[in-house]
Amino acid sequence: MRILITGGGGFIGSRLAAALKARDPEARITLLDMAFPPGLESQFTCIAGDVAAPKVIAKALGSDTDSIFHLAAVVSGGAEADFELGYHVNLDGTRALLEAARKLAAPPRFVYASSVAAFGGELPDVLDDTTTPAPQTSYGTQKVIGEYLVADFTRKGFVDGRSMRLPTIVVRPGKPNLAASSFASGIIREPLAGVEAICPVPDTTGVWILSPRRVVEAFIHAHDLPSSAWPTTRVVNLPGITFSVRQMIDAMGRVAGAESMKRVKFRPDARIQAIVETWPVRFRTERASAMGFKADADFESIVRDHVANEKAAATKA
Amino acid sequence: MRILITGGGGFIGSRLAAALKARDPEARITLLDMAFPPGLESQFTCIAGDVAAPKVIAKALGSDTDSIFHLAAVVSGGAEADFELGYHVNLDGTRALLEAARKLAAPPRFVYASSVAAFGGELPDVLDDTTTPAPQTSYGTQKVIGEYLVADFTRKGFVDGRSMRLPTIVVRPGKPNLAASSFASGIIREPLAGVEAICPVPDTTGVWILSPRRVVEAFIHAHDLPSSAWPTTRVVNLPGITFSVRQMIDAMGRVAGAESMKRVKFRPDARIQAIVETWPVRFRTERASAMGFKADADFESIVRDHVANEKAAATKA
Repeated sequence: MRILITGGGGFIGSRLAAALKARDPEARITLLDMAFPPGLESQFTCIAGDVAAPKVIAKALGSDTDSIFHLAAVVSGGAEADFELGYHVNLDGTRALLEAARKLAAPPRFVYASSVAAFGGELPDVLDDTTTPAPQTSYGTQKVIGEYLVADFTRKGFVDGRSMRLPTIVVRPGKPNLAASSFASGIIREPLAGVEAICPVPDTTGVWILSPRRVVEAFIHAHDLPSSAWPTTRVVNLPGITFSVRQMIDAMGRVAGAESMKRVKFRPDARIQAIVETWPVRFRTERASAMGFKADADFESIVRDHVANEKAAATKA
Repeated sequence: MRILITGGGGFIGSRLAAALKARDPEARITLLDMAFPPGLESQFTCIAGDVAAPKVIAKALGSDTDSIFHLAAVVSGGAEADFELGYHVNLDGTRALLEAARKLAAPPRFVYASSVAAFGGELPDVLDDTTTPAPQTSYGTQKVIGEYLVADFTRKGFVDGRSMRLPTIVVRPGKPNLAASSFASGIIREPLAGVEAICPVPDTTGVWILSPRRVVEAFIHAHDLPSSAWPTTRVVNLPGITFSVRQMIDAMGRVAGAESMKRVKFRPDARIQAIVETWPVRFRTERASAMGFKADADFESIVRDHVANEKAAATKA
């Protein structure tokens, strides 16, 4: 089994690589990303470069690659700030990868990380599998375009595509990033590490959430499902669970004590609020449930998972 | 007023140019297309070349261009037969034109010809303004992607975009083309000219139709509407009227006599049928009606219009 993970240097990509390796130690896994944190190069073939450059893709793809997980992307805030870069990586990159995949010996499985940023504008209170994407960011636009490309390349028999619209992933480890949703992890991660966190949105703000553990499971499940389990659009809204900022902070307090809660400071940021306000908060994800995708049960276990992961990482280091 | 029409050598593009010139004789109108029929070059600035080539676009666009009508496309059957060419013209071309438009002195109005080929897959009996595009052809995929690009470039303030999903245009003059819908005009045009026509689909096949007269009116109306009349998606399903092949042939008989009807021969073509079957047949177009777009009243007047246009063309020649 030969696998390529783009964005493999990122936090979800590298956890996905570890999970795939754990279940199949014989798997030959290549990671493609702009850069890699220490430790990955000893376990996986790591290719550093631009995902939109055909030469870089050619280095990362073998003619016998069976499966491609395409996670590489310029995140929402980044693509909004740098229009050209967003289109280059998120649109040109996806297209270049599909074009390269199309030329492989056999059509590979192509698992594509889309996003609920696909949705925006005038939305119903609860979105469902029939809601039409109307993104209000360039990032969301590029993700939706990627879904349509994946569907067309699949219809033509060039790849076996599977797109998932990811909820906001919480708790992300590491540092804040340019994603407008970065605060949703920061308000948990920083206080648990004894550090102050800035929340740029009101505590009534709702967020549609999936944990790192569940999203890695979802990538593998999306990959393993038979092709016939997917609709012709090849896309599914992943299940998640809705929490307000206040509910998240309260759950953290129940797990880690009231002191942690005091480390969250509210400092409104109109630019972030404007982006986050366009995102959907509640979904009915009947198709995903029927396909066997799973949401988290509660926020406390998401917090406990994060604490356990941080401890394990600290022990290893 | 300075105007660019891509696909301006085609039949709708050149009629649109004539209509724009008729209402504003001072308008400076440039047509961009691969080639031009005789007669256009004396009335308009005609640029021959690839709409996806930035150098060609640079020749066609002035820094003071106020309005762009983007009609150039590889049609459905053509884009299905030649995957690369379809993506080159229909996706790269639209993107290159939007990128060039973005660099003009002021954001131009950008009227984009999309198509009901955006829709497919499992469809409701009657589509409406909330139906999610799920194209079953590369052409439809490329058109939907263009709509999302137009919306994002509009949201960023780079153009003032307006996309219309066109019904099948009947009666097209001239020769059959590679569009899978080519038969819908052929079964009227050829018999009226005393020639036999081949119909590749059963006479029960329904088609969602708009006449050449109405589509030219729609382009101008879409252009003239204030920006605020458009939703954030910047796209509207144009109104049309549903006829079966049988109803069209019968209407032709009532206008032109029973002899004309006998010139339609049915010869099933599985490839054409497979494409046409994925297209939607019935719509509720409330948004378009509220915006002031108009459908045809009946098929007889479409036939009469075609006869009158052919007579006028013959007199001129």
